[in-house]
This record gives sequence, C-alpha cells and structure tokens, in this order.
Amino acid sequence: MTDAQQFISQIREDREHGASELARTCLDALARRAGSIEVTSHEVLRQQLIEFAQELQSARPTMAAITNLIGEWIAAVERLPGGNVSILRDDIKSISRTLILASENAVSSAAAHTAELVGTGKTVITHSLSSTVVAVFGCLVGNVKAIVTESRPPSEGRRLAAKLSELGIETDFISDQQMGLFTKHADVALVGADTIAGDGSVINKAGTYLLALAARDRGIPFYVCFESFKYLDVSPTSVGLEQRDPAEIDLPRLAYVKAHNIYFDVTPPDLVTAWINEHGIRDESSFAAET
Amino acid sequence: MTDAQQFISQIREDREHGASELARTCLDALARRAGSIEVTSHEVLRQQLIEFAQELQSARPTMAAITNLIGEWIAAVERLPGGNVSILRDDIKSISRTLILASENAVSSAAAHTAELVGTGKTVITHSLSSTVVAVFGCLVGNVKAIVTESRPPSEGRRLAAKLSELGIETDFISDQQMGLFTKHADVALVGADTIAGDGSVINKAGTYLLALAARDRGIPFYVCFESFKYLDVSPTSVGLEQRDPAEIDLPRLAYVKAHNIYFDVTPPDLVTAWINEHGIRDESSFAAET
Repeated sequence: MTDAQQFISQIREDREHGASELARTCLDALARRAGSIEVTSHEVLRQQLIEFAQELQSARPTMAAITNLIGEWIAAVERLPGGNVSILRDDIKSISRTLILASENAVSSAAAHTAELVGTGKTVITHSLSSTVVAVFGCLVGNVKAIVTESRPPSEGRRLAAKLSELGIETDFISDQQMGLFTKHADVALVGADTIAGDGSVINKAGTYLLALAARDRGIPFYVCFESFKYLDVSPTSVGLEQRDPAEIDLPRLAYVKAHNIYFDVTPPDLVTAWINEHGIRDESSFAAET
Repeated sequence: MTDAQQFISQIREDREHGASELARTCLDALARRAGSIEVTSHEVLRQQLIEFAQELQSARPTMAAITNLIGEWIAAVERLPGGNVSILRDDIKSISRTLILASENAVSSAAAHTAELVGTGKTVITHSLSSTVVAVFGCLVGNVKAIVTESRPPSEGRRLAAKLSELGIETDFISDQQMGLFTKHADVALVGADTIAGDGSVINKAGTYLLALAARDRGIPFYVCFESFKYLDVSPTSVGLEQRDPAEIDLPRLAYVKAHNIYFDVTPPDLVTAWINEHGIRDESSFAAET
C-alpha cells in the first residue's frame, strides 16, 4: 500500500474526528503531498494530486465538508496556470492553507453566533463529538453546563466529556438511552452535523434524531451549528449513511440475528429550531422558504 | 449476612430478569421460606415471613409487580387462621403457588391478546428484555420479524436476541442510538413495563420513551403489554426510578464530570397507542377516561 492509499484508508476508518477536522486534515495532506510528490512535469503533478483529492472526496460519503472543501480545492487547482513545477507546488500549498483557514474561521464564527443564541446560564445537552460544538462551549466557559451522551459506538462522548472537563465545565455524562430522561434537565439541545441537506435535514451521528424528538417533546429548542461547507444541495435520502463493522456492537454469533452498525441518522427540518453557520442564524421558516 | 438478606440483596442487584419474573421468584422464595424457617409458634412464622415479604417489596421500587403480588400475598397470609404451624406452612405455600400461577396466566393472556392485535407478517421493534414481549413473539413464531436494541447498560437486548434466535425469528440487532433509524423499518413498536402508573404512563427501561417518540414520528403504533399486577394507581412522578453504579458506563474519572446511570424512564400516555393486559386491549381514550 502506498502512502497515499494508507492515508485514504486512515481517513475512511477514522472514528476520532468530526467532519470539519477531517476535511482540514485532508487539505493539509494535499498541501504536504504537493510539496513532496516526485513528478516530471506540472501536468503530472496536477493530475496526480487531483486523483488523490478525488479519492479522498469519496472516502467519507456522509461528510459534506470533505466533499465541498476538496471540491473547492480541485476547482482552484484546475484554474492555476501551468509551467513551473516549483511555483505550482507553492500555489497548491497556498490554496490548501487558504481553505483550511476559511474552514477554521467559519467554525469560529458559527460557534460565536451559536453561543450568542444559546445565551448564558444554560444547560446544553449534546450528542456525539463535534469540534464546532466544543467551540461553542469554549465561548461560554464559566456560564454554561453540559449534558453529554456516551454516543456508542465508538463512545466519542467520552472524549467530549474529557474536553469539557478540561475547560472546567460541569458535565453530566449519560448512556444514550438516558437521553430522553435528561432532556428535561436541559434548556437547549445542540449538535453539530456531518451534512446539512438541501431541505435543512441534519445528517449526524445516529441518535441525533432521537435527541431532536425528545427536545420537541420537552419543549426546548434544537439547534444545529456548522460551517457552511457542510451544506449539500441534495435530498437527504441521497446522502449515503456510512456503516461500520457490526462487531463494534459485540454480539455473539446467532443463527437468526443480524447486527447493524449504521453511524448516522437523518433529523428532518421540522424538528430543527435553528440552523447556525458563519453567516448567522436561520429559523425554520426562512430555511424552508429558501430551499 | 443471613440467607434472607442475601436473597433480598440478589433481587435488588438483579439485572437479568424482568419485573414479572422477579416477582414470581420472590413468591417462590416466600413459599420455600415458609417450608424451611425454624419457628416456635404460628405467630412467629407469620410475623417473620411478612417482615421478609415487606423487605422484598421495597427492594425494587420501580417494579410494581413485586409491590402488588407481594402485597396480595401479605393480605392473604394475614387472613389465614392461626393454630397449627404445619398447616399454616402449607397454606402459605399454597397462597404463593396460586399467585405465581395467576401471574403466569396473566402474562400468557396478555401476550395472546397482544399477538392478536399485532397480527401476522409484521416487523416488531422492541427495547429491553421483557418476558411478556418474549411470550408475544412466542405466539407469532413463523409470522413475525424482530428489531432488538442493545439496551445498554447492561445490554439485556443481547439475551433477547438469543431467545428470539432460538425461536427461529429473524432479528435485526442494533445499538440504542440506531433506534430512530430502524423504527422506519418496523410496523409496530412493542414493549413490556416495570410499572403502569395511574394515568397510563409506562415506567420501563430507559430508552423506552425515545422509542415511543420515534414510533409517533414514524406513524407506527406503540403498544405496551403487561400483566395487570404491574398497575399502580399513583402519579408517575411518585414512582422512584432506580439508579445503578455509574461505573457501568465506564467513564474515566474527570474533575468536572458526573456520570449517571438511571435505569428507567417514563413514557407519557399520549405516546401510547394501546395498553394490553390479561383483560384485553385499551386504547388511549378509554384508558384516560377510566383514570
């Protein structure tokens, strides 16, 4: 397996990072590869990097930030003039850095808008681990409490609890099935997203839909915050929901039993109170009107 | 620790059995103790057994079947004539056996009514492990498919999957957070109960409320089946929800993080399509009318 194939496989198998972080990791890998790959001409450099980028794009079908940010990277690389290999390498590295910065800034702005909407003195319940949601908590340190689900498998909620504890945020940690019970102790439900579909549906870690249902039933708002690179103008049913090895659920082999391990679910727009990205806040009606 | 104390502790810590089975296990223990306990008089026999029964009653506050069946046992034992110790022992054993049989028959009848309501050729999604629900599947063998949640902790859904596999029932096994996703593949959601409160609220394994929310959102019925010994004419908020050691959720020690492990949640009556016990089926309106 080549280094490139190994990296693609690592992105495909990653359970540690959210979609925004993975997208920026991919852009960083493209920059590093632009600097190191041995080529004989600028055409070959461009062609090989674009092929690598396209493979990365298809590695995580549920994560629109990867599709979109690498899509923008490919379009920008295609527009670059040819000629000098060394200048082309530098230009491609520069494009990568610019997009990484754009993504980071979008996440920061989305988090700041979300923190303002949540307000101070609130208890926020969240599901899974989103770097954007961590950034929101970062804005609210000293003025917020958290309720965090285990998010099994692979239980990335434990890493979120560790991050919040480092920030000094009082956190209640619960198994996924206690989500309904604890929503009544929360003022706000807040999640990140892997993809926002054209109708505003939220594709995110499985269980997000259950949290949204509980939030509606308990009468608390359900917010989703995301950089706009996560928006895909497609039907939610056309977004492939990645599956993992059912062995993660650890069921003994049984003749008539099939285990499933689908990592994502779809929360329909009627359960979302507000979508917040770097451009600001949209409530239900305005989002529906636009799409 | 005496044998009696050991048994009470075993009932308190049991994670293996549902409320109906545990209630009958308690009645069986009372019968065995009636036969074996060394006493000097019928007064002492009756008094010591009733004290033991009362301790059993308070061991599982969330399980009404234990409260009610042992309550009936105590009332019947108090009505017995005194006199001969040996006859009293036999009468008490007989009361225990009669109540065990009444409970078993109630479960069988409730299961038969439920199977009729579910109908054939359906896919049934359930949460946790209920012996009454297993009895329903038993009535429908050859004409039903199942979707079973892990029900973590302690993941008793694995034992349900094994039971259904033994019955030859095709079963999809999912983590708790996939519950919303898989409800769309089900025709019916069906659960047992630990307690049915006066207003029809269902107190059952945590996560049941989430299944009921998903069932309503997907437009499939949510049924609860139970022997009527599980009915308690009290407000749902007055039923204590048992908690377990948070270590079951396996979180490393973190300064600002508190783990919770509440085993039960409350599903309000407006999410229940029908309540089925040994006397038959009640839909929402008739249940509300009676209470």
